[in-house]
Amino acid sequence: MKNNLSMFFTPKSIAVVGASRNPSKAGHGILKNILWSFEHKDKIFPVNPSVTEILGLHVYSSLLEIPINIDLVILFVPPKIIPGLMSQCDEKKVKGVIIESAGFAEVGEEGEKVQNEILKLAKKFKIRIWGANCIGTVTDTLVTTFEPFDENIRVKGHLSIVGQSGYFGGAMLLQFFSERMVGIRKACSIGNKIDVDECDLLIDFLNDEKTNVAAFYLEGFKNPRKFLQIARKSTIPIICLLGGLSPVGKKAVLSHTSSTVHGSPELLANLLSQSGIIQVEEFGELFNVVEAFTKLPVPQSNKLAIVTITGAGGVIGADIASKYNIELPDLSKKATEKLQQVFPSWMPPKNPVDSWPAFELHGVDKALRKILSILLQSEEIDMVILMIACMSVAKTFDPMIVKSMNKYAKPLITYIDGDKKIKDNWTKTIRSNNGVVFYNIRTCIRILHFFNQFKKHLDRRVI
Amino acid sequence: MKNNLSMFFTPKSIAVVGASRNPSKAGHGILKNILWSFEHKDKIFPVNPSVTEILGLHVYSSLLEIPINIDLVILFVPPKIIPGLMSQCDEKKVKGVIIESAGFAEVGEEGEKVQNEILKLAKKFKIRIWGANCIGTVTDTLVTTFEPFDENIRVKGHLSIVGQSGYFGGAMLLQFFSERMVGIRKACSIGNKIDVDECDLLIDFLNDEKTNVAAFYLEGFKNPRKFLQIARKSTIPIICLLGGLSPVGKKAVLSHTSSTVHGSPELLANLLSQSGIIQVEEFGELFNVVEAFTKLPVPQSNKLAIVTITGAGGVIGADIASKYNIELPDLSKKATEKLQQVFPSWMPPKNPVDSWPAFELHGVDKALRKILSILLQSEEIDMVILMIACMSVAKTFDPMIVKSMNKYAKPLITYIDGDKKIKDNWTKTIRSNNGVVFYNIRTCIRILHFFNQFKKHLDRRVI
Repeated sequence: MKNNLSMFFTPKSIAVVGASRNPSKAGHGILKNILWSFEHKDKIFPVNPSVTEILGLHVYSSLLEIPINIDLVILFVPPKIIPGLMSQCDEKKVKGVIIESAGFAEVGEEGEKVQNEILKLAKKFKIRIWGANCIGTVTDTLVTTFEPFDENIRVKGHLSIVGQSGYFGGAMLLQFFSERMVGIRKACSIGNKIDVDECDLLIDFLNDEKTNVAAFYLEGFKNPRKFLQIARKSTIPIICLLGGLSPVGKKAVLSHTSSTVHGSPELLANLLSQSGIIQVEEFGELFNVVEAFTKLPVPQSNKLAIVTITGAGGVIGADIASKYNIELPDLSKKATEKLQQVFPSWMPPKNPVDSWPAFELHGVDKALRKILSILLQSEEIDMVILMIACMSVAKTFDPMIVKSMNKYAKPLITYIDGDKKIKDNWTKTIRSNNGVVFYNIRTCIRILHFFNQFKKHLDRRVI
Repeated sequence: MKNNLSMFFTPKSIAVVGASRNPSKAGHGILKNILWSFEHKDKIFPVNPSVTEILGLHVYSSLLEIPINIDLVILFVPPKIIPGLMSQCDEKKVKGVIIESAGFAEVGEEGEKVQNEILKLAKKFKIRIWGANCIGTVTDTLVTTFEPFDENIRVKGHLSIVGQSGYFGGAMLLQFFSERMVGIRKACSIGNKIDVDECDLLIDFLNDEKTNVAAFYLEGFKNPRKFLQIARKSTIPIICLLGGLSPVGKKAVLSHTSSTVHGSPELLANLLSQSGIIQVEEFGELFNVVEAFTKLPVPQSNKLAIVTITGAGGVIGADIASKYNIELPDLSKKATEKLQQVFPSWMPPKNPVDSWPAFELHGVDKALRKILSILLQSEEIDMVILMIACMSVAKTFDPMIVKSMNKYAKPLITYIDGDKKIKDNWTKTIRSNNGVVFYNIRTCIRILHFFNQFKKHLDRRVI
């Protein structure tokens, strides 16, 4: 399936209508972000009839005054004047318009009327519309959101994400993902999705060589059947959080993005799962799953070993694994014999591997390196959870151990508990080295469950 | 129901058999902790035939040499010599023995034999046994664990907790709870529970005026029927994490504390719930629930208002609430009218209350104070979740607002997302002022679900 959204992602020229001198206004923020992010510095054109200069740029009193044709126009102006601007866009050969202002279908009938009028004109002029009521795009080459953006903490990478909410734009987006060292390829706030919708973007992501993981927060599908059909052929994980599944949630969505999710939550869950889409339950889980999929290899099976510093951790880990049909196989004779060399004779190693006696014998570092590499090399094990706590016996734990296990190409998830400062430090090191850390066991297990779900999808995928 | 465990919690004299000069040995750690925590400094007696002085104390070569009778003996010696020590204990009129050494039923038949022998002698001499294979007690007046203990970060308070795992003792215990500003009354590691078991402790907690919340991590019930019967009459919340519910979990328990949970997970869940016990799914949830119950009032009903900074948060909050039968009622005319004064006219306030337009009008502080106090005073609302994110519009959020809402005596849970540093600071302030903070929505909703479950228990309680 082909698709062309290049006018939004790689335009050659941009105009911002509604550009403002006031730093607290969105019309200022948009221009500011474009100024530092867009490579064609001489093809940025602010438009505002009552100002002559903003951020050192000459301001045009109308689109028509701009001396060249424009690929992308960004609008932050009152809804009612937008239909009038569409023919100007046509005259300037505009290919795409992002409407970041609010006040459309989400506020009532009148707004919906304007929205429909804009769409009609856009179709007539063959202009694609992005939004309205959105906060634009953040890609590795262009930032059009009005949200303040801290260039220094951004990580560029391979996640492309769509959010029907400002929550996934600008500052928040960076905070969510830079802390986890998850790099962004394209982040798309699509608001009321008058025209460009989740199907357009899914197609774009699947055709994009730099996108390895696709994620969506949606408050409704414009064309669910089409979305599911595209998803079924995907070779990259598609992670989806649906909002508005409950009656109260649906009502809240109406005044947010004026969308609707149709069908019962159970039916939707089935349909998504059959199409290989990973459905998550909330924002926190979305970030966790995205992080795991961008960093870790997909396991070959559901066979898990748990390495723990406390018996209780292994017990609860095994209990939760069993809820998600994740198997903790008995260790092979070979693995057991190898492990026994690290353990005292009174402690025959089993899965879960309660490791403190080995720590006491050999120190945390040596013991853990041996235990983890034996397990990650064992045929009966395809994924490992390492549970570590900042207890006295493990205080000297070196988080770089996690990195050294990457070579085995099986997912290793680290669970940390205990002293906050130590936890924060270990987390930072592991995350910076392409590892993942979570602070509760259910999260670790659900990640593995989603991995297995995706593996099944790959195996049965329509080719 | 009456019960006397005062020999363990408030002894007048203590002997430590197996005391050691070596700071890395448990026999040293135990003595050290007793030395700083126990009020009767002149009634602490280390016993070790091969040493004459430890930590400035005279060391006795045997229990029998100690000049006075002893209330509590703590043993860190090889299992096989313990039966021989029991008659010495009898001679010294010992009332309780804590066995912190391991190597009993959890390692096999031979250990089990020793364990049974000790129990037989204890019954004969009317001595209560605590453990074995445990790490002792941490109470507000006595610390008998061998784990390093940071007196400076401990918080004394009203939580009493039982853990069949070292995970809940000493350093880890402090780290878990001091960070959350949850004060400990009695923390009890009971290991193999040869004699003193969860029923003894539950009775003790329910009779203890200073215990407001009772929590248990158990890998089996010694007498489930009795435990449930006692629980049914409780006026304080009883929170329980059961380990070993799955086949693999059960196997792991055998080599951990040699216990067994009987019955299917579903049957157990029903029995616990019918007895008003709150069953949690893992450690993280245990800490969360304990924190909420020690700090917040129990709500009168399941009627929730969500105050959010982003529409998406309200939508997902409503969706998850619906899964747990938590109601988000429409706001009364009175509340709506009052709220409307804080909101712009184009934004009629609804539940969930999407608050950013009010923030833009009045600033975060003024808007939030008004919104929260209107909701917390409304008859149709009995609990509130405040979702706040470190977005530009909310950066000036003052976490002390949460404290100022305590006067309404309805539970207010704060959900924070965004920049880690800001999040950490807000969290610290809120927690230090008797508030709770969680970082994912499911957690907030599950807490409220458990609150409602406990409220139902109180209403139908056998009096």
